[in-house]
Amino acid sequence: MSYEIPFDASEYEARLRKVKQRMEVAGIDLLLSSDPANLNYLAGLDAMSFYVPQILLVHKDEAAPFWLGRQMDTSALRITTRLPEANLLPYPETMLHQQHVHPFQALCEHIQSRGWGSQTIGVEMDVDYYTARCHQNLIAGLPNAKIIDNRRLVNWVRLVKSPAELRYMREAGKVTTAAMQEGIDNLLAGKKAYEVAADVLRTSVMGTDGLYGDSPAAFPFVMVGENAHACHLYWTDREMPKNEMVVLELAGVRKRYHSPLARTVLLGKLSDEPRRLADVIIEGVGRALEAAKPGVTCGEVENIWQNVLRKNNLSKESRVGYPVGIAYPPDWGEKTTNIQNGDKTVLESGMCFHFQSGLWLEKQGVALSETFAVTENGGQRLAQVPHRLFYRD
Amino acid sequence: MSYEIPFDASEYEARLRKVKQRMEVAGIDLLLSSDPANLNYLAGLDAMSFYVPQILLVHKDEAAPFWLGRQMDTSALRITTRLPEANLLPYPETMLHQQHVHPFQALCEHIQSRGWGSQTIGVEMDVDYYTARCHQNLIAGLPNAKIIDNRRLVNWVRLVKSPAELRYMREAGKVTTAAMQEGIDNLLAGKKAYEVAADVLRTSVMGTDGLYGDSPAAFPFVMVGENAHACHLYWTDREMPKNEMVVLELAGVRKRYHSPLARTVLLGKLSDEPRRLADVIIEGVGRALEAAKPGVTCGEVENIWQNVLRKNNLSKESRVGYPVGIAYPPDWGEKTTNIQNGDKTVLESGMCFHFQSGLWLEKQGVALSETFAVTENGGQRLAQVPHRLFYRD
Repeated sequence: MSYEIPFDASEYEARLRKVKQRMEVAGIDLLLSSDPANLNYLAGLDAMSFYVPQILLVHKDEAAPFWLGRQMDTSALRITTRLPEANLLPYPETMLHQQHVHPFQALCEHIQSRGWGSQTIGVEMDVDYYTARCHQNLIAGLPNAKIIDNRRLVNWVRLVKSPAELRYMREAGKVTTAAMQEGIDNLLAGKKAYEVAADVLRTSVMGTDGLYGDSPAAFPFVMVGENAHACHLYWTDREMPKNEMVVLELAGVRKRYHSPLARTVLLGKLSDEPRRLADVIIEGVGRALEAAKPGVTCGEVENIWQNVLRKNNLSKESRVGYPVGIAYPPDWGEKTTNIQNGDKTVLESGMCFHFQSGLWLEKQGVALSETFAVTENGGQRLAQVPHRLFYRD
Repeated sequence: MSYEIPFDASEYEARLRKVKQRMEVAGIDLLLSSDPANLNYLAGLDAMSFYVPQILLVHKDEAAPFWLGRQMDTSALRITTRLPEANLLPYPETMLHQQHVHPFQALCEHIQSRGWGSQTIGVEMDVDYYTARCHQNLIAGLPNAKIIDNRRLVNWVRLVKSPAELRYMREAGKVTTAAMQEGIDNLLAGKKAYEVAADVLRTSVMGTDGLYGDSPAAFPFVMVGENAHACHLYWTDREMPKNEMVVLELAGVRKRYHSPLARTVLLGKLSDEPRRLADVIIEGVGRALEAAKPGVTCGEVENIWQNVLRKNNLSKESRVGYPVGIAYPPDWGEKTTNIQNGDKTVLESGMCFHFQSGLWLEKQGVALSETFAVTENGGQRLAQVPHRLFYRD
């Protein structure tokens, strides 16, 4: 075993038990999961094997999950998971990249051969990597099955982190802190955006205090001036201008656990508007995190934030936060609940959210986010970057 | 315009014409594309806006494509594309991340309102980001449409690169060369895999000769010893061992064009086996690239490679090459034809392939790949890293 599997076997067993409990409530006999974060969560799998069809099978009566994937990737399973050899179901290379045949035909044969072909099967209808064609093949190959949407059942289990997971979330926060500090230090007029990105990336892998960083689900964002409005642009060779703002957004990652963060840096002299926005954000986040204790709903937290905005004649239409943890490309959101208007999800200790408290006016905006863990004392920040605007000459 | 759009308007017009020609042959009135590489190819879009539902609409009777996506991302469209404002169809934030509503309901309304609801609509059935739920919503919202698989129609147009695209492919090859050289230079016994990855990543962004690198669709692979068998493992904190092999695989990227490369480095003393494998690969690649001229089929090229293997009592089951160009996460393959046994695709000047000529025996393997462009003189290598084993003490 050349890779360290990041958790004890008991941790994976506990996760599987929780998934099976929810399967029972939902009336699901066999759960199929394509989300690579779920394969990591339930089996430990950590490999770039999700760009071809791959799926985890969790059956209510089976002790361990089964994995179906590309022949070539079975080695990665042997190294990064504890799945028994008999639970690895490789499909042959000849099924890949073909119009007339699809790996899910092999999946259906496995399901039929185990006598599960007439059972209730819960799939992830809205997960990247579970394409329309995957679903079409499943339906065609299992005419007697009842196929339903499992509604990201595994993601909902992932929402509450165990103490062992929280340890990695905090380590990720340390890596985030180092990478963000590197970015802020690098933001000087004349420097090019890609140069900042290159150094931030390097630091996010080198990590800090002996903690190296895994590859993030998304690359760092370095957004300059008006482009910061377009939240998801990649870096360019644009020079850091004078008298402009730069927004940095990135995630440090430990054992696939992500702790994202955004900060805004003012280069040179600017109007008072960004400072005013920042003051509102800092107060709003402070209030919201104070309130983020077990028993409070996501909607209530959003309302506390929104109240601070309202009294300053501001508003934010989109969700202000989303859960984070294990992630693979293309993004680091867990995709279950949100910190948004009216959301009824009740907070529990161990939930982790990226509170994406950016505010955008017509010309200018400020992003000062925090990732926090829900504790009895409120939301605990995972990174140690001061929650304020930064200034560079 | 703060971003440089990498091609003239005429280039995008020519691409659109080719797509429409294929649509006519396939009997498709309206083509829908979710593959972010296709959105870049046809409209220029370059943003991380594909992690939420987003789609490009190409109608046979419309001069320009339409884009449907998240409200927040319209700014990215204004910056990176020339699409007319009227062709941007943002859906509201309230449609995102909901169980009871889906952005494709807005898509169906647009299609109906334009009178296209009873036409033939070609979708990408097997593309990441076109989930089962997307397809389900499309079918439900367009009961009178004839919905068919467009079989990656746009990807097939992308297969032959224009001179302007080849320029970026060659620039990408230069970035690849710099990053691979950085990796090879860094491979010393005792160095940790993540340290090598961090420096390789940094160089792949810093680029070379004033050419910076875009973010690659997949992170560099640094695979040590036996783990090199598991082709898709991420970096760890494993130390570079003595008397082992390390495989590096990475892509330099210019304006989203990828030029991948793999090299094997021998640390210390090893048996003669890797040298023997390398000799076979070097001969096989040399012969195959000599033959890779317009008019030859992919299957014929594969056979030339396989002949060299056969005469050395070796074989490779998986495809030996795949087309490359524009790519976004999770991987850099173009996903149309392959250089594989029996493939009938006829090579044309301007096609570009990653010839993934790795050979794996039970214990040891060697990867020495090349990305090449098809020319009248055969396959032209895009990177300038010597095609051989590297040795480090």
